[in-house]
Amino acid sequence: MSELRRDPTCGAWVVIAPERDNRPRAAAGPERTTKPPPFDPTCPFCPGNESMLPSIIAETPSSETPGWRTRVVPNKFPAVRRNAAVFEHGPLYEAVAARGRHEVVIESPAHDRDLATMSRNEVRDVLLACRDRCAALLAEKGVRCVIIFRNRGGIAGASLRHPHSQAIALEAVPRRIRAREATMRDYYRENGSCLLCDVVVYEQAERSRLVAQNEAFITVTPFAAAAPFEMWILPKRHHADFKNVADSEIDACAAALQDALLRLDAASGRPPYNYVIETASKGESESPRLHWLLRIVPQTTVSAGFELASGLPINPHSPEQDAAVLRSAR
Amino acid sequence: MSELRRDPTCGAWVVIAPERDNRPRAAAGPERTTKPPPFDPTCPFCPGNESMLPSIIAETPSSETPGWRTRVVPNKFPAVRRNAAVFEHGPLYEAVAARGRHEVVIESPAHDRDLATMSRNEVRDVLLACRDRCAALLAEKGVRCVIIFRNRGGIAGASLRHPHSQAIALEAVPRRIRAREATMRDYYRENGSCLLCDVVVYEQAERSRLVAQNEAFITVTPFAAAAPFEMWILPKRHHADFKNVADSEIDACAAALQDALLRLDAASGRPPYNYVIETASKGESESPRLHWLLRIVPQTTVSAGFELASGLPINPHSPEQDAAVLRSAR
Repeated sequence: MSELRRDPTCGAWVVIAPERDNRPRAAAGPERTTKPPPFDPTCPFCPGNESMLPSIIAETPSSETPGWRTRVVPNKFPAVRRNAAVFEHGPLYEAVAARGRHEVVIESPAHDRDLATMSRNEVRDVLLACRDRCAALLAEKGVRCVIIFRNRGGIAGASLRHPHSQAIALEAVPRRIRAREATMRDYYRENGSCLLCDVVVYEQAERSRLVAQNEAFITVTPFAAAAPFEMWILPKRHHADFKNVADSEIDACAAALQDALLRLDAASGRPPYNYVIETASKGESESPRLHWLLRIVPQTTVSAGFELASGLPINPHSPEQDAAVLRSAR
Repeated sequence: MSELRRDPTCGAWVVIAPERDNRPRAAAGPERTTKPPPFDPTCPFCPGNESMLPSIIAETPSSETPGWRTRVVPNKFPAVRRNAAVFEHGPLYEAVAARGRHEVVIESPAHDRDLATMSRNEVRDVLLACRDRCAALLAEKGVRCVIIFRNRGGIAGASLRHPHSQAIALEAVPRRIRAREATMRDYYRENGSCLLCDVVVYEQAERSRLVAQNEAFITVTPFAAAAPFEMWILPKRHHADFKNVADSEIDACAAALQDALLRLDAASGRPPYNYVIETASKGESESPRLHWLLRIVPQTTVSAGFELASGLPINPHSPEQDAAVLRSAR
């Protein structure tokens, strides 16, 4: 089963996915102190261990052993399912089936690699694989949005050490994503321009939150950063949808991503982090109002009782000070 | 400084509180493996160390040494301040001063106590002190809501081991609390009854999520639990506001709270947790639509990229199975 249940007191939805409780816990230990081996015989993502995989969805082929550079597989412990069912619930409560797909992008055959220190071409392959899964999943019947994300470190939710990203396609658009699209639409209606295009111009001129830039992307600490060293990588050119990004722009994105991750590791001692690609939901691909971005959120603070009750994250860092530290970190 | 900044892309607010970065980290180690001493000479909350405290706001007096049972002090590293200022920000961004009060309720003179194993009278004193601070803070000029919470364990956000709760008063009502009050108002308008009064009756009859009950409270796993072993302690009698709860009902609440915490420790191996008291914001004290509750959320899962992008928590446990485990845990 995999259900979306609605909290009757505040209207917030929760994914109830008991099968997730059977996940392995390989990465739960401290990330920084142990060096993983290049091959782990117990790891389902290592070459030769294909019998541990449900199936293989896609690969980036390679002329070198093992014959692939990236590989896409179904998540064995999915948060959402193509054929999720929902139980009957009483008159007070609302639940719907948590329908969707949950996939893993294995980023390298090598168990011990990390995005920050891969070759530029390897990072490019990872982003291309993610882009192509985003496009393929959005094309599937019923899918309304796709979330691409990466968790590094057990604290950040990685249950396997082998480097991987994930894609979750949903047959509903979560409230947070709807709020984001509505807020950006409101801005466009009031100002006649794309909010994030304006942010790109403003941050380049203002500079206090600017971390780095290349020909196609800028990296900033966001004005309302929810966590220390949070960074946004924004395409300079307007584009609502990650799934349609050109190969050349993926190159520049790979460079910006790697630069940001190296700065983060230098500034904050190789912290656990999540990153997510925030991109248009289905049908919004050509929107003049939406603008995709890659959002990196280190997991160095904890969410406590206040955050739980108020929904307000507390960031104990100033985004402007963090930007200064990150600028000088390379 | 302490600012509330608004994320321009989704409208969510964040507390930027750089002074919080100077907090001590005494409780950051693993909670389960080390036994704290009954007195810690470096702990500002231990008796005799008053010189480390900014001031003392209130006490429950005792005829025994050290002369108090609970004590309320200002948080030395506040998330919000009475006189918070806001910096000027450009045309794209919105920020307001994070105005409020941030207090600590020291729950016992003894450094090594824990709510679950205190005497019933001690738990009662803690809840009475929290109730009285809730009332006193709501009476202050400008305060619009009060959040009472407790963090146990470094993973759950406790920066000091000495047992304590916290109270944060805000001069604005956070979006999550407004959503909660609006959702419960909608239910009342449609059904002519209080949502949580109906939940109390329903869960007592339906039983699949019922964990325990006494004369005045029921403990349930909520239908849309966001985390394994989340529990709600609900007063059976309708009451919107924790600040006005009678002493006799506080007794029964202390019994229910201690019972729930002991079940949690037995079922889940003494996990870190947060609890929060969800109560009416200012002016809603006599509302027929709102109903206060105590919400216990263990911190045994991590929030990863998917949760960040979607805002949807993934709970890998079924609330019904959790209730069965908790029922048989004592």
